[in-house]
Amino acid sequence: MTSEAAYTELIRRSKEAAVLSSCGAVLGWDERTYMPHNASEFRGEQMALLARMTHEMTTDPKVGECLATLGDSSLAKDSPEAINVREIRRAYDRAVKLPKELVEEIARVSTRAQQVWQEARSKNDFPAFQPWLEKIVTLKRREADAVGFKEHPYDALLDEYEPGATAAQVRVVFASLSAELVPLIAAIGQSKRRPKREILEREYPVEAQQAFAKAAATAIGFDFQAGRLDVTTHPFCSGIGPGDCRITTRYNPRFFNEAFFGVLHEAGHGIYEQGLPSEHFGTPLGSYCSLGIHESQSRLWENQVGRGRTFWEHFYPKARQAFPSALGDVPLDDFYFAINEARPSLIRVEADEATYNLHIILRFEMELALLSGDLKPADVPGAWNERFQKMFGLTPPDDRQGCLQDIHWSMGGLGYFPTYTLGNLYAAQLMNASKSQLQGLETDFAQGEFGRLKNWLNEKVHKPGRSCRSDELCQRITGEGLRHEPLVAYLRTKFGDLYDL
Amino acid sequence: MTSEAAYTELIRRSKEAAVLSSCGAVLGWDERTYMPHNASEFRGEQMALLARMTHEMTTDPKVGECLATLGDSSLAKDSPEAINVREIRRAYDRAVKLPKELVEEIARVSTRAQQVWQEARSKNDFPAFQPWLEKIVTLKRREADAVGFKEHPYDALLDEYEPGATAAQVRVVFASLSAELVPLIAAIGQSKRRPKREILEREYPVEAQQAFAKAAATAIGFDFQAGRLDVTTHPFCSGIGPGDCRITTRYNPRFFNEAFFGVLHEAGHGIYEQGLPSEHFGTPLGSYCSLGIHESQSRLWENQVGRGRTFWEHFYPKARQAFPSALGDVPLDDFYFAINEARPSLIRVEADEATYNLHIILRFEMELALLSGDLKPADVPGAWNERFQKMFGLTPPDDRQGCLQDIHWSMGGLGYFPTYTLGNLYAAQLMNASKSQLQGLETDFAQGEFGRLKNWLNEKVHKPGRSCRSDELCQRITGEGLRHEPLVAYLRTKFGDLYDL
Repeated sequence: MTSEAAYTELIRRSKEAAVLSSCGAVLGWDERTYMPHNASEFRGEQMALLARMTHEMTTDPKVGECLATLGDSSLAKDSPEAINVREIRRAYDRAVKLPKELVEEIARVSTRAQQVWQEARSKNDFPAFQPWLEKIVTLKRREADAVGFKEHPYDALLDEYEPGATAAQVRVVFASLSAELVPLIAAIGQSKRRPKREILEREYPVEAQQAFAKAAATAIGFDFQAGRLDVTTHPFCSGIGPGDCRITTRYNPRFFNEAFFGVLHEAGHGIYEQGLPSEHFGTPLGSYCSLGIHESQSRLWENQVGRGRTFWEHFYPKARQAFPSALGDVPLDDFYFAINEARPSLIRVEADEATYNLHIILRFEMELALLSGDLKPADVPGAWNERFQKMFGLTPPDDRQGCLQDIHWSMGGLGYFPTYTLGNLYAAQLMNASKSQLQGLETDFAQGEFGRLKNWLNEKVHKPGRSCRSDELCQRITGEGLRHEPLVAYLRTKFGDLYDL
Repeated sequence: MTSEAAYTELIRRSKEAAVLSSCGAVLGWDERTYMPHNASEFRGEQMALLARMTHEMTTDPKVGECLATLGDSSLAKDSPEAINVREIRRAYDRAVKLPKELVEEIARVSTRAQQVWQEARSKNDFPAFQPWLEKIVTLKRREADAVGFKEHPYDALLDEYEPGATAAQVRVVFASLSAELVPLIAAIGQSKRRPKREILEREYPVEAQQAFAKAAATAIGFDFQAGRLDVTTHPFCSGIGPGDCRITTRYNPRFFNEAFFGVLHEAGHGIYEQGLPSEHFGTPLGSYCSLGIHESQSRLWENQVGRGRTFWEHFYPKARQAFPSALGDVPLDDFYFAINEARPSLIRVEADEATYNLHIILRFEMELALLSGDLKPADVPGAWNERFQKMFGLTPPDDRQGCLQDIHWSMGGLGYFPTYTLGNLYAAQLMNASKSQLQGLETDFAQGEFGRLKNWLNEKVHKPGRSCRSDELCQRITGEGLRHEPLVAYLRTKFGDLYDL
């Protein structure tokens, strides 16, 4: 096999596996939107078959042969071909390092653990979940050992979500962030100023919310010719393939934020997916960079843009038209303060822009300790509550509102949480860079114009696909690697103004 | 390999191919319902991959090995195992007889021919379509030769849709049917009585139509816990798998029949799919018997039940509530006559219960002549119009309303049309049998009770799956094979009453 033939074959196989996997994405979307109730068992069979066949394709020994042939070839460093080979090799090597029985056991245990977790949460019964958390931690530790790592087993897990990132690097940035956020949040707590939260808890008819959110998603650049917006219990964005990206949300007729900011968030993910170079679909060059970068795109549109003052200068008059009975008597400033209320609270997914990151840091620290063995699953509730008190000045009244609130551990997703805060950090860095490279962006926003920002993101963040690591992408675009200062400065300014600090 | 091991392996492979194929069914449904506009090209890639992989699974040499091993085994005749082996062998033998290049050329030519046909129809340009019809006829003739046949090449094509049926058998039944229908339709044409068609062309708000049709589909037994009803341009029923059967319709706000009878029709198909034994999913025992039997189930609910007087004794008061402005001043008898209007018309899909069959017979005769070579594609328009005049007393003013009206030939579906009238014939025979085996069915209908009929169909028609040929199934249930008399008698009585013949 010539190296040219090997490359062609490698790419053909990569694309074919991606097309097959994308069929699973359609079924996954359908499962959560329109699938009939009684279809769920059969859907499990369909999904399992597609997953198995996709896995067989990506770990086919023929892929290994192509990679071996290409191992000694002289692809120009950082050429598109070299990048694709490097990244396919990376995924292949990881996949073949994992014993099949381990992969299957993780799949089996985490399916069951999710069910147990769901019941344990609703009954506030941590002891019921504890043995399953033990199994998960043991299995994920075995996964880390199989994959291999230099410093901390966590690195092997984190690497799946945030290629190239390490626990040590994240720990440093998170520690600095935490040191700044804790006093900021305390200061907000001391402030006499309080937004009128009830403004957001008036009547917001679902149909009007739908039209309003869709109009905003369109305005920021989500292409509905190549996408959809539907309703699900747990909102998500699914980038199925070229021309097909679907986002979902849920509507609460008595709470404005949930659907609106949810749609902006998922539309941010969707704009990233729609901006990936479709000619490279099914290869690393056509894939997202990392989950941290993916999250930076959702957070940037949801928070940096969507919770900004200028955004609402344009959208607030439209909001009043859409919701006259709720907002007719509310001045813009009151509305703006209400959607930016910050206060320590127990639940991560309801947290504001500042405290959200403390939720993540707490989980990251506990995951590190679980994996190293310093923390035993049995001690999780106590450790959680103690840290929570220290960081938030609150103690969860029960585990339902504490260590049982998230699905991630039951899914085997140790290593995933940090990407949320990495997204916030990158979003702040990218927003700063866009503002310095494009003059007058806030003026654009105030006029409902988001095209320049969207095109800049397309060019700088989306088109490169997975051609480099997240940290390096950030370096290229902003001139600096991952840093905590831009997010801290942004939060200080914003909440300083609002809370008169 | 023991024959037990061979059987187990054969069934495992059959089920796996069915599960993979069912993933394509989900994507096919999505394509016609909710898929974003720009996704169509990529959807083509997804569908092609799934089709290719499913085809590879069903024609895998390992399947042939299992069948060879089982060839000499002593499965008890007509045992479930013997039936499954017989039918899998039948499909496998047919598939491996077809050269791969022929299958691919038919797929390629028919994809293109459909596009050409669509444009030719809209422009009333038969000459544009003619070369493509020539290609199709040649390719289908090659397919017939490859598959093999005893009497007529048509048998090889018909066999795919109606296993075991032959052109000779169909020709005899259709000739008798035609001989009876032509004078009946002429007599209707002579009648002084005319329904008030405009009743059905008043305002029928779409939302009310949707709720009303859904209620009727539920009443006859379509299970919405295991199915859905959505909107598409071309209505269909897709039985995806256990617990998942989806039907669609289209709403015309100024015509009652289209959506309502369309939904009853598709719900009839759906009730069949939902009634197949799910424990045999993916094997012949869990598959529909033939397209003729499938169509008998849709026609039975749409026409024999849904256009019947007793059905409307129950539903008409509800229809008046649902559509007060359209039907408030209309007596039941006028409505009943209007939905059963019979008159020769040019378009098959708009035809009434009686003339519909003449449309099919005409197409069947032309397909026979095309395949045997007695009719050249170039002569199709002339031959069509001549026959049409003879059978209907009308001449199409153009080919758009004549030989270009249907998509089937462009899709390569020669041999498909007869199954529509086979469905009508079987529906009449099955309805007679159900009425003689279950006393007082019409009284049930008048009370909105359809459970006894549905359960009878479940037991007699659905549960047997593909365990025998359609003709034999009919024989078992009704004591007689395929016959034209029951349909003729039904139509004579119904239209005799309505048109005072």
